[in-house]
Amino acid sequence: MGEVRAVGMKVQIRGTGLIGTSLGIALSRKGYAVTLSDPSPTAERLARDLGAGALVTGGGDEPDLIVVAAPPDVAGAVVQCALADHPSSVVTDVASVKGVILTHLIDVGADLSRYVGGHPMAGRERSGAMHARGDLFEGRAWVIVPTDVSRTSATDLVQQIARDAGSVTMVMAASEHDKAVATVSHVPQIVSSLVAAQLRLIDQDAVALAGQGLRDVTRIAASDPRLWTQILAGNAEAVGGVLRRVHGELGELIEALHGLMPESDGLGSLDVVARALTAGNSGHALIPGKHGAAPAAYDSVTALVPDTPGELARLLTDVGEAGVNLEDLRLDHGLGQPFGLAEILVVPAAAERLRRALERQGWRVLE
Amino acid sequence: MGEVRAVGMKVQIRGTGLIGTSLGIALSRKGYAVTLSDPSPTAERLARDLGAGALVTGGGDEPDLIVVAAPPDVAGAVVQCALADHPSSVVTDVASVKGVILTHLIDVGADLSRYVGGHPMAGRERSGAMHARGDLFEGRAWVIVPTDVSRTSATDLVQQIARDAGSVTMVMAASEHDKAVATVSHVPQIVSSLVAAQLRLIDQDAVALAGQGLRDVTRIAASDPRLWTQILAGNAEAVGGVLRRVHGELGELIEALHGLMPESDGLGSLDVVARALTAGNSGHALIPGKHGAAPAAYDSVTALVPDTPGELARLLTDVGEAGVNLEDLRLDHGLGQPFGLAEILVVPAAAERLRRALERQGWRVLE
Repeated sequence: MGEVRAVGMKVQIRGTGLIGTSLGIALSRKGYAVTLSDPSPTAERLARDLGAGALVTGGGDEPDLIVVAAPPDVAGAVVQCALADHPSSVVTDVASVKGVILTHLIDVGADLSRYVGGHPMAGRERSGAMHARGDLFEGRAWVIVPTDVSRTSATDLVQQIARDAGSVTMVMAASEHDKAVATVSHVPQIVSSLVAAQLRLIDQDAVALAGQGLRDVTRIAASDPRLWTQILAGNAEAVGGVLRRVHGELGELIEALHGLMPESDGLGSLDVVARALTAGNSGHALIPGKHGAAPAAYDSVTALVPDTPGELARLLTDVGEAGVNLEDLRLDHGLGQPFGLAEILVVPAAAERLRRALERQGWRVLE
Repeated sequence: MGEVRAVGMKVQIRGTGLIGTSLGIALSRKGYAVTLSDPSPTAERLARDLGAGALVTGGGDEPDLIVVAAPPDVAGAVVQCALADHPSSVVTDVASVKGVILTHLIDVGADLSRYVGGHPMAGRERSGAMHARGDLFEGRAWVIVPTDVSRTSATDLVQQIARDAGSVTMVMAASEHDKAVATVSHVPQIVSSLVAAQLRLIDQDAVALAGQGLRDVTRIAASDPRLWTQILAGNAEAVGGVLRRVHGELGELIEALHGLMPESDGLGSLDVVARALTAGNSGHALIPGKHGAAPAAYDSVTALVPDTPGELARLLTDVGEAGVNLEDLRLDHGLGQPFGLAEILVVPAAAERLRRALERQGWRVLE
């Protein structure tokens, strides 16, 4: 990839919500000349006041790059306008679905040589410019989605701004991207919402039995319904494909469970259930570990931490002083108890050493 | 509840896997006279060597309480034998399903006045005596499930050992318990496994797009298929009921998404999707917060943490020195970056103060 100089490069951002404003702040700091526009005058002035760039004015030079950060359901039309209005500018977008936008651009005969799609994997549970931050993209993946005819220089430019915003880039085709996010993001969102929704139908006493498992499975059920409705609508085909498979497998499980009830013969039913759970084990093992490295199996050392300020810090200081690198940390909250459990994940070779070191420091380490 | 003296009370534990052995260790430490038996001579001797109690011998007094800690699929038969072998002992069990056991005992005409079911919410991803620990039950809920005719003294005794093991007890009927765990535990396990299983069908490149959402939803997909097959088989009716509802709602969503594809009219489809996501929001909000307290909304302050030993400890020390109590902590791993994001959840009133304090200490705090 050819290096492109940031300083003085002109980037226009259309749409100043969370992503557009955050990107404006990040690129302005890197020396890009960023201009902003949004259908809402309030929103674009707020973004400007947050340091995301200057407002677009009538005159001035053509932008080198236009970033469309509009909601997924209008992104295609805004990209189309941007390509038409600025016949020498490269145009990208940041929508979390890519196929519908590409289809729209092909349908309207847009100049695809200057268009390169993109998708920064950097959502938040909140939206809007007021929650924007210049480091939103730090360390996140940003999928770059060139068309078959995108110019190499256009792809390079989009990669450059993604990296300058702090992201790690990877290149995929639109259909490949949409299938991937259907499986790793959109379908998990749907099932999380469905599982959480069932809690409305039981007593609060019953909900109080919730353990860490339920909390983990339903955390993203708190996401914004309006945004997610657009995302799912924009990826209806790929999401539908994965959902139909899940729906079919769920149907088999329901039948298998019915076969396990006292009045049934249950022939072969246990096997269906066991195979579904084992397939879950295999799928889980494919998820990359820390920092995108190969999946790793860590050992865990769990200590009891009193619920008073500074105790967790003291524990982790002792972990550090034992010369052990903490790979992950998970806090578990007891029910009605004045302490929590801190599960420290470390490489297997270090687990026993860490356990002994913490015990020497007076920690109550679970066995 | 009448107080019962632990010292010298005779508890016999049948089944020395993870739960039975852990309970033996906990109760032995509290002064109970614990005896152990298991169909596997190796397993019972291992439990004894771990300090869970003495082996059951032919002679001796009747136990005050027999705890059946056998796998769910044989627990009913073992409880039946225990009630018959020891006509003056109270009998409980720790299986994670309660209805099938009760039905079995009614069918065989067992003495239900001396039986009280139980379910400590204290599983681990690992099983077997070698992973047992005396503090497995600390701070966990332990559901006590009396029958309609259980003697009050029997219920009191079972509550006593649950509390002495460190648990917080709550009383429920068997059917109520089974419906509750179907929704808060068994169905989340199934959907987590199904979502994880889909990852086997996409490229490793696509799996690499996994964010924290997928990691959370699929964490429990790593659970033991053999144990879970038994649990699901033992709660087939209640799990089937909840799963059929999820299956139906999933079917509606698939149809709605199909209605949103370009060739359809999509009338009313967006609304179906939006309502499902909103119902997920409502369900999620019902989950109790830390320590079983009422659900609370915390503010989050996120800091960049270099991936070197001791840095997270230093961050949390600075949090403590700012006089702010950390309510929860979540680590997020960047993709291919030498640092992580630490999201610190605190009460809203403390967020701004914490942010400023961390910045003064030189931390890079996300905006």
